[in-house]
Amino acid sequence: MIPPTLPGPDQILEAATRIGKLINHTPVVTSAYFDSITRSHLFFKCENLQKVGAFKARGATNAILTLEKQFLIRGVATHSSGNHAQALSWAASKAGIPAYIVMPSNAPAVKVNAVHDYGGKITFCKPTLEAREETLRDVMRETGATEIHPYNNERIIAGQATAALELNQEIPDLEIVMAPVGGGGLLSGTALASKFFNPKASVFGAEPEKANDAWRSFTTGQLTPSVNPETIADGLRTSLGSLTFPVILECVDNILTVSEESIVHAMRTVWERMKLLIEPSSAVPVAALLTYPELFAGRKTGIILSGGNCDLDHLPWLP
Amino acid sequence: MIPPTLPGPDQILEAATRIGKLINHTPVVTSAYFDSITRSHLFFKCENLQKVGAFKARGATNAILTLEKQFLIRGVATHSSGNHAQALSWAASKAGIPAYIVMPSNAPAVKVNAVHDYGGKITFCKPTLEAREETLRDVMRETGATEIHPYNNERIIAGQATAALELNQEIPDLEIVMAPVGGGGLLSGTALASKFFNPKASVFGAEPEKANDAWRSFTTGQLTPSVNPETIADGLRTSLGSLTFPVILECVDNILTVSEESIVHAMRTVWERMKLLIEPSSAVPVAALLTYPELFAGRKTGIILSGGNCDLDHLPWLP
Repeated sequence: MIPPTLPGPDQILEAATRIGKLINHTPVVTSAYFDSITRSHLFFKCENLQKVGAFKARGATNAILTLEKQFLIRGVATHSSGNHAQALSWAASKAGIPAYIVMPSNAPAVKVNAVHDYGGKITFCKPTLEAREETLRDVMRETGATEIHPYNNERIIAGQATAALELNQEIPDLEIVMAPVGGGGLLSGTALASKFFNPKASVFGAEPEKANDAWRSFTTGQLTPSVNPETIADGLRTSLGSLTFPVILECVDNILTVSEESIVHAMRTVWERMKLLIEPSSAVPVAALLTYPELFAGRKTGIILSGGNCDLDHLPWLP
Repeated sequence: MIPPTLPGPDQILEAATRIGKLINHTPVVTSAYFDSITRSHLFFKCENLQKVGAFKARGATNAILTLEKQFLIRGVATHSSGNHAQALSWAASKAGIPAYIVMPSNAPAVKVNAVHDYGGKITFCKPTLEAREETLRDVMRETGATEIHPYNNERIIAGQATAALELNQEIPDLEIVMAPVGGGGLLSGTALASKFFNPKASVFGAEPEKANDAWRSFTTGQLTPSVNPETIADGLRTSLGSLTFPVILECVDNILTVSEESIVHAMRTVWERMKLLIEPSSAVPVAALLTYPELFAGRKTGIILSGGNCDLDHLPWLP
């Protein structure tokens, strides 16, 4: 059963209107090369060209713009070292409110700098989940800020759903819509938007084999988090949450898992052939296309390229 | 005096219609980052997302589709190791005719493979201009193919002009339109399209200091080719031709030259901030923006990102 608090079609349309002036309406591009090697018709939604370089700008903006005024002025908080931290910092600065970001002390300098550049106020903590949660509670107590969870939050899910809304509006009659799955914010939003606005489409999630909690949870019907998974797709190391799991169980048709090698190959091939920088997490659905071409042959598939934040000094195919 | 054989507004509009179904209508993207550091309003025309990864697909397609039938069936020929060779091979295969490409024996394998993959028939020669021209004459004599020069050709220029036509149509009232300059096919097309369809705009060319023949020719009024220039912007090592020079002299307002360091920095910054793969030649106008921000401050500028064909095993900022 999908929790009744999850966004319906009206909430997704309202989110799209609400965030429309702040975020990018990203382009949908095609690739003769990928069409030819997969014998299918592919439409890539370029969320790597989104503000802050990832779809996360959608959810963060929607979550902040729907905060009640008395909470809004005290700001927002989260623990994250990834794109959500950047997106929340960016969206908060657009709204003129503070964003308090708890980051592990071993977070890469490039990510710390990005959060700082977007105006986030960083508190460092020990690199354990307990320390992150405890530090976040401390920060919230001191500041009165509202926690914005990266994915287990209805307003975040409604925001992320607007990417698939735009994709289904721009390319009618998609037969498959596919997104990567980590915590499930993007995939559950994609599934809801597709169910509401293109109910004939199948929805696929794509996940690294090495962080396959969504596949295990989907297959067994039991929420089964991963413990410290190690995949190059750093945005997909998180596990499904209590809100995203039921949506995925009910509205997603298949979870496809892919190897680390196939992720690196897919990432490089998109750079080379499509001239688009995508991060490893974004390459996961492309790796699924290349690993399971028979599922897509002859069909019209929309793929969400979720983000493009990479460290250009360390490319996975270079020594 | 612009030679009367050069395309007028009708020829450019006809070229756009003629090639429209084969090439990509590439997106125009913006960047809050570049707007902010240059204090201007920038619109980037993404020809790196064009077929074969470069604007060259436009000119090659127009040149082939305007060939008379008796010439068409014998195919087309050129000597090139760059994007024109790939574009001509691709456009010829779309038209179902052969493309004969003369390449120097030391051309990088990645470029040879790309031409081969697009169906070009390659003849190797010694890596000198004389050998290339002589081998091309031999190939044309044997095959009856028509030479399609990479830039000193009116139909090529009309094709390249369609990029700036689309840019000016999509973003009205641009105050500056800027393109890189090598042989001048793109810049002369850009200048003609802007003169005809947005006559108030200034047109700037951007060129590597190390291959500054266009700047020297523009400044002195005398066509002054470069001799074996060495710049990382490999697409801009060629010199202006007899057709492109007069257009540039009459219709271009300024040629801006940039250092090699600024090209690498601009390239990396576009990758990092805009998530778009551009090749070094494409980074040259971006380097001009960053080198001469005072020329652009407060103004609405369109920039043609000319191509995205890079060797991903050798990035200029990595050891």
